[in-house]
Amino acid sequence: MGRTSDAKEKILTAAHSLIEQRGYSALGVAEICKTAGVPKGSFYYFFDSKEALALAVIDEHWDSERREWVRILGGDAEPLDRLRQLFEATEATQRTGQESCGAISGCLFGNLSLEMSNQTEAVRERLQEIFEAQAELVAGVIAEARERGEVTVPDTRAAAQSVVAQLEGQILFAKLYNNTSTLGTLWANCLALLGAKAPARV
Amino acid sequence: MGRTSDAKEKILTAAHSLIEQRGYSALGVAEICKTAGVPKGSFYYFFDSKEALALAVIDEHWDSERREWVRILGGDAEPLDRLRQLFEATEATQRTGQESCGAISGCLFGNLSLEMSNQTEAVRERLQEIFEAQAELVAGVIAEARERGEVTVPDTRAAAQSVVAQLEGQILFAKLYNNTSTLGTLWANCLALLGAKAPARV
Repeated sequence: MGRTSDAKEKILTAAHSLIEQRGYSALGVAEICKTAGVPKGSFYYFFDSKEALALAVIDEHWDSERREWVRILGGDAEPLDRLRQLFEATEATQRTGQESCGAISGCLFGNLSLEMSNQTEAVRERLQEIFEAQAELVAGVIAEARERGEVTVPDTRAAAQSVVAQLEGQILFAKLYNNTSTLGTLWANCLALLGAKAPARV
Repeated sequence: MGRTSDAKEKILTAAHSLIEQRGYSALGVAEICKTAGVPKGSFYYFFDSKEALALAVIDEHWDSERREWVRILGGDAEPLDRLRQLFEATEATQRTGQESCGAISGCLFGNLSLEMSNQTEAVRERLQEIFEAQAELVAGVIAEARERGEVTVPDTRAAAQSVVAQLEGQILFAKLYNNTSTLGTLWANCLALLGAKAPARV
């Protein structure tokens, strides 16, 4: 009993929520199973270790976030407007999380980078891949904008990493102050980092 | 025995190092005392709780870092050059840490913001005060640069927070990749965020 894909999904959902609230180190498998409402035996049927669970939570979250980033950054809007939409979506996600649980949980990948990256190599590598994928997606849009003469950066990949670093830094403050207003600066700061002017709003 | 200021200092040093390596949640008082080489009774003579110890570690680190920031940002160099010196000092500190322990530990305040800010109000408030103090110090330099017509930002305090957010975001990447080279972008990105040009090097 409990060894169904339903149980696996329950464990992943509980783990995601607990990691967002309290981080990874503070959690035990027993507590995750209790929150998920599944017997502890189920855990080891689906996951070899707590680290394997963390990797599964990271993958599931990135699957979902990547779809959103690809939808927005691959959309029909002008390139720079797509970056604005990404920041607005990020702010909306954090606000929704805050409304549902009272606290801004921040970026799962940023949280785990600072908590775990010098503890487990597997998690560090996975998080590196995710941030590289994010920078690639943003770099593609910056390259489009550069072809149109809208930005002046010499290195689109380095500029993209700076934009993502800025996103992570402001999300850190949003979490620390439990206030999304800091995220309102992302768009203007992105334009500044790219040496761009705001495109005319349609 | 052990209830001397030497024991307190040993506990603080051990806790600082362990928190940098593994975060706060994963630590127990017994391990901290063992690393410090002091009996567990000493711990509760000096600290009411693990949270009280965390606050003491934060305060001690900020005392030291604040002196460095004040020395650099209150120095005799041109205002924008002082910001460059701050980034260079940050990179040098992370490189020294990496050389001594093999891994970049990042920013203690950023690490604890993402790990602990939605768990303990006392730590959250202390970290907020520290980041506000950092932004104030940077804002003072930006205001000087603005008076000299070297930067164009409308709001020096918001600009300072963006500069500090950028610093935190790039330190996150330095820690994740265990590589300080990402910090080499801080100066150019700061100038971009401030709408400034690099001052002529003396």
